[in-house]
Amino acid sequence: MNFITGNKHKVEEAEKIFLKFGLKIQHMNLGYMEPQGTLEEVARFGAKYAAQKLEEPVIVEDAGLFIKALNWFPGPYSAYVQDTLGNKGILKLMENVKNRYAEFRSVVGYCAPNAEPKIFLGVVKGRISNIEKGNLGFAFDPLFYPEDMDKTFGELTTHKKNQFSHRSRSLEQFARWYKNQSRD
Amino acid sequence: MNFITGNKHKVEEAEKIFLKFGLKIQHMNLGYMEPQGTLEEVARFGAKYAAQKLEEPVIVEDAGLFIKALNWFPGPYSAYVQDTLGNKGILKLMENVKNRYAEFRSVVGYCAPNAEPKIFLGVVKGRISNIEKGNLGFAFDPLFYPEDMDKTFGELTTHKKNQFSHRSRSLEQFARWYKNQSRD
Repeated sequence: MNFITGNKHKVEEAEKIFLKFGLKIQHMNLGYMEPQGTLEEVARFGAKYAAQKLEEPVIVEDAGLFIKALNWFPGPYSAYVQDTLGNKGILKLMENVKNRYAEFRSVVGYCAPNAEPKIFLGVVKGRISNIEKGNLGFAFDPLFYPEDMDKTFGELTTHKKNQFSHRSRSLEQFARWYKNQSRD
Repeated sequence: MNFITGNKHKVEEAEKIFLKFGLKIQHMNLGYMEPQGTLEEVARFGAKYAAQKLEEPVIVEDAGLFIKALNWFPGPYSAYVQDTLGNKGILKLMENVKNRYAEFRSVVGYCAPNAEPKIFLGVVKGRISNIEKGNLGFAFDPLFYPEDMDKTFGELTTHKKNQFSHRSRSLEQFARWYKNQSRD
């Protein structure tokens, strides 16, 4: 399966997840326009565009951190916010904020040439830490405690994180569906 | 001239500016996809799309607040950030930040059917206030002191703001160019 992304961390996570399903990844970095909008809109648009361009089936993935007390900011603009405000900016916005509920969401968009895209959503619930913790993972990982855990995503190995992360959930959903429909 | 926007404040500002040039505005709200990217990319894409769709010349305008100490955040995502973090979020991010330099930037994109878009940039330099001031204008206006002024954009009437705002500069540049080339 062609996985269109510019992010090597995502490739690494996806490879390990797909192994369980006997699916192999072909990593391609195809610069494509991302619309402003929801994760679903970004994934839908990107998958359709790439499938048409390559004339092959593709998946794309878009993810974001959604913080309830900030009206779900940074959401679909997580990458931009990571590059500008960084983790320190998020912690500053969350100073003295009691409700620390947050979700990581991942949307996989799959599209075959001349077909409509399909969407797979994975969510993991959790809370924003008071300080950055851990140097594993990437981006907002050191700020995020998944529900019922005393370690942030930044303190978990890829293997451990893949057991329940938002991205593993969307990728697994896709892989299960894909295996099923190719069996028909 | 068709002005494609969903923002009635922008229409009001543009009407007054164009009056000086004898240009009339036709306001149209045509939902179009905005790409993630720079203001220029958004304006270019939007103008081209709308000109093709309407089969008439159009302008679109995209603007943002660029804060130096925040790596130019919120930039092209100003509308999203206004809707989520609001002015209070920006003030929180700027707490104890000494360098308060900021710019408002506006890009007008003009496009005729079957032509390439043209871009007009207007910038106004200034600084971020320590508290919100004024209830005129809209969005981040109450946070922004233009250079050499002791009033924020939120304390200025549309008439006064139009004398030197980013949007008046981009719109006037466009209007001057448009009048000149239609005279040829």
